[in-house]
Amino acid sequence: MSDSTSQTMENATVEQVCQAAKAAAAGMAATTLEQRNNCLHAMADALRAGKDQIIEANTADMDAAREGGTPAPLLDRLMLDEGRIDGIASALEELAALPDPLGQVQRERTLASGVDMQRVSVPLGVVAMVYEARPNVTADAAGICMKTGNAAILRGGSLAHHSNLCMTRILHDAAVGAGMPKNCIQAIQTTDRAATDELLCARGLVDVVIPRGGAGLISHCVDTATVPVIETGVGNCHAYIHASADVDMARDIVLNGKCQRPGVCNALESLLVDDSVADQALSVILPALHKEGVELVGDEHARRVAQSVDVPMGEATEQDWGTEYLDLKMSVKCVEGLEQAIEHVNRYGTRHSETIIASDEQAGEAYLAGVDASAVYWNASTRFTDGGEFGLGAEIGISTQKLHARGPFALEALTSYKYVLRGNGQVRG
Amino acid sequence: MSDSTSQTMENATVEQVCQAAKAAAAGMAATTLEQRNNCLHAMADALRAGKDQIIEANTADMDAAREGGTPAPLLDRLMLDEGRIDGIASALEELAALPDPLGQVQRERTLASGVDMQRVSVPLGVVAMVYEARPNVTADAAGICMKTGNAAILRGGSLAHHSNLCMTRILHDAAVGAGMPKNCIQAIQTTDRAATDELLCARGLVDVVIPRGGAGLISHCVDTATVPVIETGVGNCHAYIHASADVDMARDIVLNGKCQRPGVCNALESLLVDDSVADQALSVILPALHKEGVELVGDEHARRVAQSVDVPMGEATEQDWGTEYLDLKMSVKCVEGLEQAIEHVNRYGTRHSETIIASDEQAGEAYLAGVDASAVYWNASTRFTDGGEFGLGAEIGISTQKLHARGPFALEALTSYKYVLRGNGQVRG
Repeated sequence: MSDSTSQTMENATVEQVCQAAKAAAAGMAATTLEQRNNCLHAMADALRAGKDQIIEANTADMDAAREGGTPAPLLDRLMLDEGRIDGIASALEELAALPDPLGQVQRERTLASGVDMQRVSVPLGVVAMVYEARPNVTADAAGICMKTGNAAILRGGSLAHHSNLCMTRILHDAAVGAGMPKNCIQAIQTTDRAATDELLCARGLVDVVIPRGGAGLISHCVDTATVPVIETGVGNCHAYIHASADVDMARDIVLNGKCQRPGVCNALESLLVDDSVADQALSVILPALHKEGVELVGDEHARRVAQSVDVPMGEATEQDWGTEYLDLKMSVKCVEGLEQAIEHVNRYGTRHSETIIASDEQAGEAYLAGVDASAVYWNASTRFTDGGEFGLGAEIGISTQKLHARGPFALEALTSYKYVLRGNGQVRG
Repeated sequence: MSDSTSQTMENATVEQVCQAAKAAAAGMAATTLEQRNNCLHAMADALRAGKDQIIEANTADMDAAREGGTPAPLLDRLMLDEGRIDGIASALEELAALPDPLGQVQRERTLASGVDMQRVSVPLGVVAMVYEARPNVTADAAGICMKTGNAAILRGGSLAHHSNLCMTRILHDAAVGAGMPKNCIQAIQTTDRAATDELLCARGLVDVVIPRGGAGLISHCVDTATVPVIETGVGNCHAYIHASADVDMARDIVLNGKCQRPGVCNALESLLVDDSVADQALSVILPALHKEGVELVGDEHARRVAQSVDVPMGEATEQDWGTEYLDLKMSVKCVEGLEQAIEHVNRYGTRHSETIIASDEQAGEAYLAGVDASAVYWNASTRFTDGGEFGLGAEIGISTQKLHARGPFALEALTSYKYVLRGNGQVRG
């Protein structure tokens, strides 16, 4: 039975996949929490039981990637072994332990006519995920969709193609075996880019697209899609050192933000410092960054200080202020004060995570109010922007848009709501 | 001063208008409730004081519309007199009385590291409204934006062009006089359609577009926009008479839904009835609809019943099931039972408002759970779908999409949130 299902999926067009997902979504809205959690456990069990098949498919991807000259860090992201598969399965079990995102009564009211009204959380419907090399996203995304009662359409990167198809088949069959509707989890079976674009434009069939990956993937999705997109990830994050800052605290926050994990979106990319304390603060912080191997570019004032403490610093161009390096590189700019700092951040930032280091309370509060970003910090590292740290449970991504979901988002972002009204014959007067 | 402002605006390109709105929005995020409410009162006072100018501009629009052969109902929508201007001003004062949509702490948490986190409501930024003939929307939209701290860009219909520009100038100058930033309220000064399309694609400058008007306007906005749109209004709403229905109750709900105000989006367009009770129910309801002047089309079974009670009924085509008549016309279809009714509604409906009439509780609850619409009723009229009835305060529209805002939406839909985090030097371990 499951074989014939998979075969059908293999020959399906993108439109057929979307239609099938829409049909599955109708049945999923009526599932209970128990059914959805049982489904997650069945998916976890099936991944562990199917580990040999998955590793075989993954070996094919790894071989092709090596032949194609894929760099080592990407190969590492792509690789699946028994330990990783077990970790992926455990993440599904953790999802099962989270509270029900559906059926929550968000608001209640009795209308003047006596009709009882409730606003209740419901699934979005059909969720499409477009992502890159990590095959764990396949199970992750499928699991999140099952927990929230949404049909999932998965479009992974071509590097992980065999791994993704193998896992999708296993996850789908386990979900259907646990009582979920056929086609509740589907993969786009081709790596053709035109297929992705068709998915991005399947308005009326797909309710939301969530891209997970680099800036290129995200901007392609945003530019192409007619389906609503939750924009994620790009973080050109700043630390601003106010005249009242404790220099040691500033140094610790800047080093943590820049050096702990430079490749992530909540890492720092740019340092702003008040002119009046730039000599003192930068002569402490620049050598510390240099010692950690950070390449520096800056404006004239910052370069003067760098030279005075024997730290190499290139000239920052206009482009540097808007660049997310995702690497051990940082731009440094001196500003006149709070107002100019806020202006700079609102102009060049990507509305992700921003921090001010200041002892002055008025300055701290003005920065928190004036900076337009999903997370604004006062005297703390931007590295805390994370669904786990924020207590949201399973994080899907970090939204840099303002509609629907902002900042770290999780299960709730994959729900909508409807108004349910119970009367006994009321009509409007 | 205000003269020079208006003059600048008159020569501005759409991009300049959007840039100016974005600059204004930065200042608006920092305003207090008192400032925003004072602004609303100043706007109301200015409209009353400027009534002669407004009526003069409106007379120019009315003359041109009459010359162009505009039908009487549209002329009535377009017309402004002292009473209507006073009503528009009073609506602004009512907005001032509503609670603050901004600065609401939606969630609080202390992170493991001791950083204090709050999720706080903030403005969206720049809101564009695209609307048709009613010039009252100009003040309405401007007022809602001022209450929510958003910069407003208004693009009204060409019929009301002079009225809109005159009111925009008065409202802008009053708002700036009350301390709001320059360009907090702007109109697109041309009736050129290319200007609307440019506005719809001003991604990065405009945060949301809200179209208010007919199906043509809304679908043009949805199809053209790259900026996020809140889709409003089209309602192909059904009443479904279950086998267990009280026929008198069904008649009252159907008559109310179809006849009370046939031109609105929460009016009924289509009637479904279980085969097993169709003869009994329709022989009561069809004559009542006919008496109210409702034109009927139906399937074979419905037509047989119609003929037996001497009510004329045309043959319904496939197109009828998907049509929002907005008029005294209704389609009638007999179904096998609950499941087929839900399928039909989810296929042909527009996810607006739907109702079941049933005495059987299981049927009622299954319908409430299975129908995918912003408002689903059991034994009550769909006409209750309304921001006022639902207790939301000032209604902006009724969203038929699932992201961000669904069903009747008001001030809250023009807000986003940000995470504000206060620490004392914490870094991530």
